[in-house]
Parts: sequence; C-alpha cells; structure tokens
Amino acid sequence: LHRPAGEAAARRQAQLTKPPGALGRLEAIAIQLASMQGRERPALERAQITVFAGDHGVMAEGVSAFPQAVTGEMVKNFARGGAAISVLAREQGVRLEVVDLGTVNDPGPLDGVIRLRLAPSTANFTSAPAMTESQFEQALAAGRAAVARAAGAGAQLFIAGEMGIGNTTAAAALACGLIGLPAQLMAGPGTGLDAEGVARKAAVIDRALACHAGQLAEPAEALRRLGGFELAAIAGACIACAQKGLPMLVDGFIVTAAALAAVRMQPTVRDWLLFAHASAEPGHGHLLQMLGAQPLIDLNLRLGEGSGAAVALPLLRLACALHNGMATFAEAGVSEKHG
Amino acid sequence: LHRPAGEAAARRQAQLTKPPGALGRLEAIAIQLASMQGRERPALERAQITVFAGDHGVMAEGVSAFPQAVTGEMVKNFARGGAAISVLAREQGVRLEVVDLGTVNDPGPLDGVIRLRLAPSTANFTSAPAMTESQFEQALAAGRAAVARAAGAGAQLFIAGEMGIGNTTAAAALACGLIGLPAQLMAGPGTGLDAEGVARKAAVIDRALACHAGQLAEPAEALRRLGGFELAAIAGACIACAQKGLPMLVDGFIVTAAALAAVRMQPTVRDWLLFAHASAEPGHGHLLQMLGAQPLIDLNLRLGEGSGAAVALPLLRLACALHNGMATFAEAGVSEKHG
Repeated sequence: LHRPAGEAAARRQAQLTKPPGALGRLEAIAIQLASMQGRERPALERAQITVFAGDHGVMAEGVSAFPQAVTGEMVKNFARGGAAISVLAREQGVRLEVVDLGTVNDPGPLDGVIRLRLAPSTANFTSAPAMTESQFEQALAAGRAAVARAAGAGAQLFIAGEMGIGNTTAAAALACGLIGLPAQLMAGPGTGLDAEGVARKAAVIDRALACHAGQLAEPAEALRRLGGFELAAIAGACIACAQKGLPMLVDGFIVTAAALAAVRMQPTVRDWLLFAHASAEPGHGHLLQMLGAQPLIDLNLRLGEGSGAAVALPLLRLACALHNGMATFAEAGVSEKHG
Repeated sequence: LHRPAGEAAARRQAQLTKPPGALGRLEAIAIQLASMQGRERPALERAQITVFAGDHGVMAEGVSAFPQAVTGEMVKNFARGGAAISVLAREQGVRLEVVDLGTVNDPGPLDGVIRLRLAPSTANFTSAPAMTESQFEQALAAGRAAVARAAGAGAQLFIAGEMGIGNTTAAAALACGLIGLPAQLMAGPGTGLDAEGVARKAAVIDRALACHAGQLAEPAEALRRLGGFELAAIAGACIACAQKGLPMLVDGFIVTAAALAAVRMQPTVRDWLLFAHASAEPGHGHLLQMLGAQPLIDLNLRLGEGSGAAVALPLLRLACALHNGMATFAEAGVSEKHG
C-alpha cells in the first residue's frame, strides 16, 4: 500500500465542501483506494469480472437443490448474456470473462469462455482430496492468469465470480478446515436446501473433515483437499492481485472462503481486499469476522457469480467520483465549520 | 398501486435463471417498482433530483456547527457543480434542479436555480410559528411544482434533497411534534455538534415544543409551526408524487421527517415512498421505524442534499436491469430446482 497517497487523499477529503466525515464510509473507501492505487485521486473506470466455473465430486452425496448439469448450462447463459452477472457487467460497462475449469455437462467452446478444463469435476472429498497436486497448481495458475489479463487490459479493480453446483458445500468445508469451526456453523441452505438438506450437508462436511483430519494445517493443502477448481482459482487470483497491487472486490460466501484461504497462504493479501456484501448464507458472517471485514451492502443476496460484488461496484465508483469531483471550501467560496 | 403489474413482475422473477429469492431485496424492489409504475418491467432511465434550500430562524439559538451564510454559498456550489449532489447527479445522468426558498445570504440569480424566495428565513420557532399560513402554502406548492416539472420531463423517480443550516433542529422538532417523542431522542450532532451542542439543541427543541403545545395535533399545523421552507416543500412533493403515481426515493433524516409529516397529512403517500439509507443522525432510526421503512444502504452518511438517495439510486437501477434483462430458465435452457 502507498501510505503517502492515502494521506494525501485524507487531506483532500477534509477540504471538500461537506461537514468532515459526512460521507461516512464513502470517504474511507476513496482513501483506501487511493492508497491501493498510489494516487491521491483513485479511478475505477475499468474493472474486470472473471467467473470461474467448476463441478464438484461431493455432489454424489446429494448436497444441492439443483442438478449438476446446471453448472455447464449456466456457463452458456453467462456467455449468451442472460445470467445476473452478464446483466450487471453489461449495465456497468465492465469486461466479463468466464473460465471453464471443468464441468460434468461440457458446454463446448463458447465466445467469452476460456476453456481450461482440468477434469469433469473434482473428486468427492468425503473420501479423497478434491484435487490432485497438478490440478490444484493449474487451478491456482488459472486465477493468476485472469488477473494478469485484467492488469494487461488496464483494469483498476478485479472481481472474481464463481459457478459450481455444490460449491457452498466445498466453501463451507474449506472454511471449517481453515478456522476449525464445526460444520453446523458453516453449512447453510445454499441455492435452497430445506432444514433436512442442511443437516445432511453438515454431516457430509463432518465426514470430509474426519477424512482429512491431520492434513489441514497448511492452508494450501486444506484448499486442495476441501476446495474446488473455482475456489483454488479465486485464491490464486487473490494472491496475484496483491502481487500486482490490484484492488479486489470480494463477493459473497464462496469467494470469501477462497479469499480467507489466500490470506492464510499469504497474509499481505488482506490489504488488497475490499468486501462487497453480507450474504444471506449464514456462514458468511463468521468468515467476514475472521477477516475483520465490514461489507458495504446487506441486501439478502445469495446468488454468487460475483453478483454481490457487481451490485456494490457503483458505490465504489461514486465514492471515487465524489472524492475527485467535489469542490473544496476554497474553490467554492464556502465558509467552514466554526472553531 | 397497480397490483396486477406487481403480480406479473413476481411471476417473472420466479422464472429468471437464479435460485428463487437469490437476489434478495433487489427482487422485492423490482416488484415494488412494477406495481408503482403499472408495468411488469419497471424503468428508471430518467430521474429528477430537486434540492430545496431555505434558512431557519432558530439559528438565532446557536444550534449549528456551521455559519448561516453557508446555505446561500451552497446554493451557488450546487449550481456550479461542486457539491456532492452535483457530482452524484452528473455521474448518473440525472437532472438536478435547485429551488431557493429563501436564504439570509442571497446567492442571486443562478442557472439551474429556481428563485421562489418566501423570506430570508423562517421565524424562530422557539417563540412563533416558523411560517405564516401564506408562506406555508407557497412552500407546499413549490414542492408540488417540482414534482409536476419532473413528471412533465418524463421522470420515473423523484428524489428530494435539502440544504439549510440548522435544519436538523427543525426536522427533529417536527418529528417530536408529530410523534410525541422527547427532544433528547431526536436531537443529534447534525453537521458536527459536540455533546454540549447537542444538549443545547435538545433544550431549544423542548422550548419550541412548549411554545406550540396544544397546537400540534394537525400534522400540517405541526409542519407549519416547527418545520422550514424546505421541509414543507418536500412534504408537498411527497403528496404530489402520490397523486401523480411517481415513486419517490427518500433521503436521510430531514427528508424522512418531512415525509413522515406528509404521510400523516395523507396516509396513501406511504405507498409511493422507497427509503434509500440509514443516516448516521441518531434520530433517523426512530423515523424509519414509525414509517415501517427498511432502508437499502447503511454507510454512515449524514450529508443531506439528497446525497444518500442519489448514492442508493444505482441499486434501484440495477434491480430493474436484472429484472428486465435476465433470461428465464426456458429461454436459457437451464434446469430448474429439484422437486
């Protein structure tokens, strides 16, 4: 982080025509982005959203309300512009790309979709590591490559999204493995399980944690054993954002679980993360607390795809516009506060 | 409200390619706007922000951290594009107009500012009604006229802003008069009073309430006696929005106090109000509760000018874009939830 740019931004905020502090968290965001971007006046004209898609072997345990074919079907929907994240990207002039890391239902080659298929799905982590060493390295590299493309295209902010039927189970298992919390605190309804389904999901996670007990001390190893292709790619993207000095706007439960793994792998990653929203998925609050994160919005979203981050993006852009575009007291000839 | 349009919008939401309910409050907003606008697919391309400015006689009691000249100075700043609301309107392509209802420091004629000066300021309401009957009627009419201009220009949403040094005191007094709460619960720091200043402000409000005791049962009379030119204009605008069927996005503490007066004057007004944000001003929570309102964002804003509503506007626009632009399960060939 570039402290002098952040300090210059804080001095500028104090001179803008408003009571000191009256723009609340929007002031803090502008100052934070200034110190990330190394400039007194931060800019967010260009952002990139990369959605990482992958299927999950743990779907054999019946952990989702939707059939597994949906992952590949949604990759097509992203490419054709019909998904929530497609609409949000288009509406805001943000570049959207999709990385297909392996789906049971192969959508085939599609415009706007990068094929990096590692396998039709991960392995069922109740009885084996989700990924081989080689798959895990390739997934991390896929995340790094997406950030390299974003930086190369001049993006000033990176958003990671995810698609993978069953991936709230993987994210919850990963979170439990990293934090040491019981599965009941992390297993939630996901796309719409009832109470019985959530209990079954928690039991599946407990079996996975038992299977990998003693192997989870290293965060990278916990991610390889309990994560998924898209979770590993997102963790790789987080680390690459920190290395390149690119701010990342973190989406909901699944992306936050991957970000937590990345922060455990490389603690300086935390400095480059902004948190978009509080998900309706009950485990998300625990993850945000572990990361000392205060999200911007709380609209009961639980869709994934990066949609919560894309919905919060205008708030960051307006924070920059206010910071850069407002007049100072001196410029406007406005009197300052008494005393 | 047009119930069939709202019901059609709810049916559409259930068919979009996402788990049912996964877009949380954004789904509810799209459905609510559909029933307000009488169309299954609501639209918010065109919005209008009108900032009503006026000075307050109660400033003689020393209730603000800023000098009274700032009201007129800020009217100039709005017109010249340097204020927060100027930046937020410009950035979002929203029409901004300012109505000068009377300031001690007359800014003179300015482009984009409508001069409807009723007096240099209201009277000091600790010893007399803030407005004469005639001033009060003209202020209400100024609000109605702004909504008529908005509707005439094809606006699909109306935002009222306010500027008036001392107007958190007037808003708090009005709220206490309407609800019957003690001044301590409604008096807050405003633009930046310390604890001693807040206590003085509460004492001033208590004196005003004692002065007008027995005259506050009619909400319009409470507004005339304890409000301000801009508060009365905003109440008039709320009533006009309901009459024209135009949704109004309510800003923070001051606009909410005026909206509460309008709802008390005309209960059907409530149906046409959307609530943007939870202000840092401590009394705002009580007002929102009285109105059964759940604001969209909570970013510790306390600037006024309509800025909180303008910051929340992108969330409404994205809610519409998602509702109108996403593919249905059938269109995208995506499988639906089990069972």
